Amino acid sequence: MEVQERKIVVAIDEGDESIYALTWAIKNVVSQNSNDTIILLYAKPPLKIYSTLDGSGYLFSSDVIMSMEKYSKEVADSVIEKARRVCGDLQNVKVETRIEKGDARDVICDAVEKIGADILVMGTHGYGMIKRAFLGSVSTHCAQNVKCPVLIVKKPKSS
Amino acid sequence: MEVQERKIVVAIDEGDESIYALTWAIKNVVSQNSNDTIILLYAKPPLKIYSTLDGSGYLFSSDVIMSMEKYSKEVADSVIEKARRVCGDLQNVKVETRIEKGDARDVICDAVEKIGADILVMGTHGYGMIKRAFLGSVSTHCAQNVKCPVLIVKKPKSS
Repeated sequence: MEVQERKIVVAIDEGDESIYALTWAIKNVVSQNSNDTIILLYAKPPLKIYSTLDGSGYLFSSDVIMSMEKYSKEVADSVIEKARRVCGDLQNVKVETRIEKGDARDVICDAVEKIGADILVMGTHGYGMIKRAFLGSVSTHCAQNVKCPVLIVKKPKSS
Repeated sequence: MEVQERKIVVAIDEGDESIYALTWAIKNVVSQNSNDTIILLYAKPPLKIYSTLDGSGYLFSSDVIMSMEKYSKEVADSVIEKARRVCGDLQNVKVETRIEKGDARDVICDAVEKIGADILVMGTHGYGMIKRAFLGSVSTHCAQNVKCPVLIVKKPKSS
């Protein structure tokens, strides 16, 4: 059988569901093919999203902003690190990581196009703990807008 | 590597896109695994959909209804036959077919649950030539409602 070289973009966030989606994709789509590249993509929410948590329109001091930026970077690093560990057992499969700042919908659609992905893998439940109110809107948006096949994986309630 | 036995439901309709989705899935998800079962699922539009084409509320004679039923069956058979041919080269993979009457969204979601599918594969562009106005609504509905992973495959414009 012809061995393909595929670029598999997996959109990950802080939630367990994206890790489940990654695990499922590795088991069902990736593992048999040793020439795949997995690109772990994390969309880092722009700072203004964190700022609106305050809700008062209060202008944060530069100290607070620096703390938030540090926190945001730590979250990104920890998510990427966790996803990397999930990919740990794969042999011959290249794993790359990409952190982009911005709205997850834009970040994912842009990255998929730039990378020339062969498939996009993602969970269903929105992206980022803060934006979780918009359940599923990110995956729906991406499924409708990217050109490549999209694999949407839900975490079963029982597991 | 552990060999899985997976049930892969592929929702097909009259359009080229669902055949493209099937072909893509066979190449990227199915072929390496010899214990998969592909279930080709076709949702046959209920007769009333054809009747409303007339638009006048005219009651068709039983002859006309019989002709329409015959046509509807022929369409279903030809779609299933085409999809079967696409699966023709697969060795060790079981191929089953299933024709259910009803709205594609309900048919697909119900079948996926009844079958206990491991993955649902479908195109993006609605189901049935007649319902094509509702672009993408079927895949969006199914992605939001079925419990298993959903792979949505778009046909590239260039091919």
